[in-house]
Amino acid sequence: MSSERDRDLFEFMQRELYVSVVSDILDSLGYREQAMDATIRPLYKEAIVVGRAHTVLSTDVYEMPSDPYTAEIAAIDSLKPTDVLDASTNRPTRTGFFGDLLSTTSRARGARGAVIDGHVRDARRIEQMQFPVFATGLRPIDSAGRGLVIAHGTPVNCGGVIVHPGDIIFGDIDGLVVIPQAVEKEAIERAKVKVAGENQARNDLERGDLLREVYDRYGVL
Amino acid sequence: MSSERDRDLFEFMQRELYVSVVSDILDSLGYREQAMDATIRPLYKEAIVVGRAHTVLSTDVYEMPSDPYTAEIAAIDSLKPTDVLDASTNRPTRTGFFGDLLSTTSRARGARGAVIDGHVRDARRIEQMQFPVFATGLRPIDSAGRGLVIAHGTPVNCGGVIVHPGDIIFGDIDGLVVIPQAVEKEAIERAKVKVAGENQARNDLERGDLLREVYDRYGVL
Amino acid sequence: MSSERDRDLFEFMQRELYVSVVSDILDSLGYREQAMDATIRPLYKEAIVVGRAHTVLSTDVYEMPSDPYTAEIAAIDSLKPTDVLDASTNRPTRTGFFGDLLSTTSRARGARGAVIDGHVRDARRIEQMQFPVFATGLRPIDSAGRGLVIAHGTPVNCGGVIVHPGDIIFGDIDGLVVIPQAVEKEAIERAKVKVAGENQARNDLERGDLLREVYDRYGVL
Amino acid sequence: MSSERDRDLFEFMQRELYVSVVSDILDSLGYREQAMDATIRPLYKEAIVVGRAHTVLSTDVYEMPSDPYTAEIAAIDSLKPTDVLDASTNRPTRTGFFGDLLSTTSRARGARGAVIDGHVRDARRIEQMQFPVFATGLRPIDSAGRGLVIAHGTPVNCGGVIVHPGDIIFGDIDGLVVIPQAVEKEAIERAKVKVAGENQARNDLERGDLLREVYDRYGVL
Amino acid sequence: MSSERDRDLFEFMQRELYVSVVSDILDSLGYREQAMDATIRPLYKEAIVVGRAHTVLSTDVYEMPSDPYTAEIAAIDSLKPTDVLDASTNRPTRTGFFGDLLSTTSRARGARGAVIDGHVRDARRIEQMQFPVFATGLRPIDSAGRGLVIAHGTPVNCGGVIVHPGDIIFGDIDGLVVIPQAVEKEAIERAKVKVAGENQARNDLERGDLLREVYDRYGVL
Amino acid sequence: MSSERDRDLFEFMQRELYVSVVSDILDSLGYREQAMDATIRPLYKEAIVVGRAHTVLSTDVYEMPSDPYTAEIAAIDSLKPTDVLDASTNRPTRTGFFGDLLSTTSRARGARGAVIDGHVRDARRIEQMQFPVFATGLRPIDSAGRGLVIAHGTPVNCGGVIVHPGDIIFGDIDGLVVIPQAVEKEAIERAKVKVAGENQARNDLERGDLLREVYDRYGVL
Repeated sequence: MSSERDRDLFEFMQRELYVSVVSDILDSLGYREQAMDATIRPLYKEAIVVGRAHTVLSTDVYEMPSDPYTAEIAAIDSLKPTDVLDASTNRPTRTGFFGDLLSTTSRARGARGAVIDGHVRDARRIEQMQFPVFATGLRPIDSAGRGLVIAHGTPVNCGGVIVHPGDIIFGDIDGLVVIPQAVEKEAIERAKVKVAGENQARNDLERGDLLREVYDRYGVL
Repeated sequence: MSSERDRDLFEFMQRELYVSVVSDILDSLGYREQAMDATIRPLYKEAIVVGRAHTVLSTDVYEMPSDPYTAEIAAIDSLKPTDVLDASTNRPTRTGFFGDLLSTTSRARGARGAVIDGHVRDARRIEQMQFPVFATGLRPIDSAGRGLVIAHGTPVNCGGVIVHPGDIIFGDIDGLVVIPQAVEKEAIERAKVKVAGENQARNDLERGDLLREVYDRYGVL
Repeated sequence: MSSERDRDLFEFMQRELYVSVVSDILDSLGYREQAMDATIRPLYKEAIVVGRAHTVLSTDVYEMPSDPYTAEIAAIDSLKPTDVLDASTNRPTRTGFFGDLLSTTSRARGARGAVIDGHVRDARRIEQMQFPVFATGLRPIDSAGRGLVIAHGTPVNCGGVIVHPGDIIFGDIDGLVVIPQAVEKEAIERAKVKVAGENQARNDLERGDLLREVYDRYGVL
Repeated sequence: MSSERDRDLFEFMQRELYVSVVSDILDSLGYREQAMDATIRPLYKEAIVVGRAHTVLSTDVYEMPSDPYTAEIAAIDSLKPTDVLDASTNRPTRTGFFGDLLSTTSRARGARGAVIDGHVRDARRIEQMQFPVFATGLRPIDSAGRGLVIAHGTPVNCGGVIVHPGDIIFGDIDGLVVIPQAVEKEAIERAKVKVAGENQARNDLERGDLLREVYDRYGVL
Repeated sequence: MSSERDRDLFEFMQRELYVSVVSDILDSLGYREQAMDATIRPLYKEAIVVGRAHTVLSTDVYEMPSDPYTAEIAAIDSLKPTDVLDASTNRPTRTGFFGDLLSTTSRARGARGAVIDGHVRDARRIEQMQFPVFATGLRPIDSAGRGLVIAHGTPVNCGGVIVHPGDIIFGDIDGLVVIPQAVEKEAIERAKVKVAGENQARNDLERGDLLREVYDRYGVL
Repeated sequence: MSSERDRDLFEFMQRELYVSVVSDILDSLGYREQAMDATIRPLYKEAIVVGRAHTVLSTDVYEMPSDPYTAEIAAIDSLKPTDVLDASTNRPTRTGFFGDLLSTTSRARGARGAVIDGHVRDARRIEQMQFPVFATGLRPIDSAGRGLVIAHGTPVNCGGVIVHPGDIIFGDIDGLVVIPQAVEKEAIERAKVKVAGENQARNDLERGDLLREVYDRYGVL
């Protein structure tokens, strides 16, 4: 797919759709396990991320390697526009995988955000630059001698979902879903329709109709 | 009790009291286990909820029922003014029990908020409508085929406290307490007095008195 | 050390340094376990704390003591300017160790903040007074008959780090580090230098240099 | 399938196969998520269970129902020979779902064992009668007013695996696997072959061959 | 009560009753929260303990006290015949509160066992001497400088139950219940009757009666 | 050190010492964090392991590698007599790192046991061959495509203790300690002396002396 078409699509999604409606559509398409677990949260509440997964796998280590950053630098420097960095780190509680300088680089490479199945640091600056980072928590500790990137561009488990490189990751305040490439076109089309239906239902509920009536009328809830 | 009297009472409580002082009064009345556990949090930090518990019990299921929403719709449509929806969901991590459309309906029915012993979704809209929802986390996933309402109007366990229908639930940023009906009148009267005492103590502490002196003077801390 | 010199140092640190850079310096000095775990969080996101640890140890109890507050009052009243109250409470989930009146007293004594390895209450007022409190969560419940101070001024374990009285505690949105007195001077000097290096690296990354190039140039990441 | 054929099959499996080899075969057939999680353990270490799942779903309740046992009794009385009772209970820590009298009944109905995603009681008698029960722990507390059976014969989640009525459940000291009906024939055939291969490999390893050589020779490990 | 009468009673209970039947009786008397949680387990599976609670409270500390054992020794040396040592330790994972020499002393003082809401050590010798110890796990580490006894003879929370000195503690493989003194006589009388009823029910179930019939006949399950 | 001298030493330790006494000695030498956490347990209760650590590090992966076993086979085939395999696996709950065939190989290579910071399988056969394996639990699932060995012979974290290749690991029913090479000689000498002292103390306690007297006499507890 071309990067410009992706960029337009992702900007539309960020503006007009939301994660819970896409989750409902994935359910209706039979993809019922596409939401990451609730422990991965945006660093600031307005953060919305949508882009193609650029996957990274790291692990815990217990001594300082000769060059602790080589594979991590390669993973970051290979980010392309419309990518979202998606790191699976085996959830160490010791170290922060990502921070201010990696965010700066990622954004400079055109990446649209980062999703880390682990802790990060430099939350204040990341919010200041409005770079949407999602993580399990904050930790001021550097990864050197604690975590080591062992691969990028492979399938990873992030937040309980297997993410393949190129899958669309979509996250907002409610959490994150992974849209498999096989159904991304249909999922997004259907999500547009459902948003319209929910707007009508919301209007009727606001004027006092019973939920029973509104659900029978529109089939959404 | 009449609904208008309740409404006036709850608006007074929301304006003048706070949860920690009511918790202290319940302690002094011998009700020492009335605070829900710390995992149930307001969706936005200004949220304050006070009203009578309208209880709902749901459970996890693993196939799509013929009509997944009938009991849930009945539970929501039966909300009355000054009610607080109080759902005990066995804390699934998979699904979100409550969201934007249920919040819209609940508010249209006159409910003063919702307390969910589980995850919810649509946090952005819920904050926009300033409907005070308390929950254990956020999750974009719909409940159909995952959770099923099995009763409403029964005693439930929410956040570790047994809640009877009609108990007053009072929540703010510090957490939630359940005020049993047998002592609600006395608890609220005593809380007013304690708030006044704390204001005096705070003034004396701000001007530099030792805590030892101030505690001996007013008996609050 | 004189209190004025400390105050100037801590105000400099609060203004110019941040916790993650100090953590990196402690790593480079061989102190690799000085960050408290990620569950201790600031009550409001702008909170920054820096000061000398005034340690307190409390434990769970299951009946009301004859005087539940004597040792706690003594611990608070002995706070000195530039101190940070640092309480190790065995992490009860039942009770809140600290709140509005203790914050008022602590600030009146000159303390620069509080770090509690447990829950606290009165979060709204604490934020209003901009007193930087860090804790594991919120809980409206008083400690009387639930928690009891058993010592102050002893070594404690707070967030997984052994804190000695007089150690510098430094916390911001990323978490907290404990700077041992033996290396405080060197750690702070080196941190100033590293901040400058990171600013240069950030500039180069923002203009599009690869992380590989920038890391080779400055050795920071 | 006829009950006698099942009985012969299950006795063969109990005698000649083991759970880990069946798990490997399910892996090779592309069914990689068929093992229940490690918290469900046999009550006594020699226990082996194999039979067709008779599923039960129960949930937590917080008041005594008018008849707490009706649905539970129906679920137990409908057990047929070669069944294994498989209960999904939302993992309450309060109550024990199963015990001595239910074990006695289940065995009298011809059931081959019970797998409970929750606690049980009467462990001593259950071991004495050598009825293979697997559970997450022991708890002396009765379920009346605490747990309520809400369905039987529906798909359930037990130990993280979706179990359909009629699936084969096979458990021994290493844990439990669920064999989907679509592949049960092939899985069992292949497992017989793998057991033979492992016996040869074990012999070669015992006489001192390197693992590298033996794995190259037989392809098992 | 006299010690001899207690001893006879406890030997009867150990021989003829079991914990789950006493738990059912406490339920029927309205004492529904008397079972310790499922994490406290016997060190060896035949262990049965019954006696009067001699309570001890200890807490975590982080430096070596001048005399680490004084209060612990006093707590152990004050054990009387028919006592059960019942220690509440705030569940440290670091240290083992109890071991071989304390078991030897406790038995020499006449104590009937020990229940520890934490870890212990020397499991092999404790089993060899057949002294019934219940604990949350095993840990080879001594308590000196890690845990400190701060009181004995006070109410404690052990396994989630408030235990008062003199309450009867009864434990077997299914777990532990605490029998409040106010109902001990009635609870034990009723338990004898229920054991007889269960024996009849078991006989009828073994010969093939439906659970429905047997429950209607005897009202036990 | 020569392998024969090691073998004699380890057989002496297995026969005459126990883990809790060595833990006390390490405490007295200032090594107070040498015990692995309580979740790593022997597969069968008589298991005792003592030998030099042969370390292995593995991590979670989410696709089948081209050769899933190469590094694992190399790690096992390089075991030497008197080694104990010590694997740090980031504690996956999905897979079992070790089993029957690896145990057979390890024993054939002369290894004295295995300590796995994760799950294993084939517990029945491992007990039959009396090969002392310690692990966090049992799981029938193979590691291929789930876990991958990434190094051996490096420092690892196992059960919360940093283990260097060549450190002595000593485990029995109470848990495991790691004896650093720098103090192994002194630690073992002192442990012999303490065992003798404890035997005297035990005798005095058995004949009824108070713990106070015996502790004053021998200084052990």
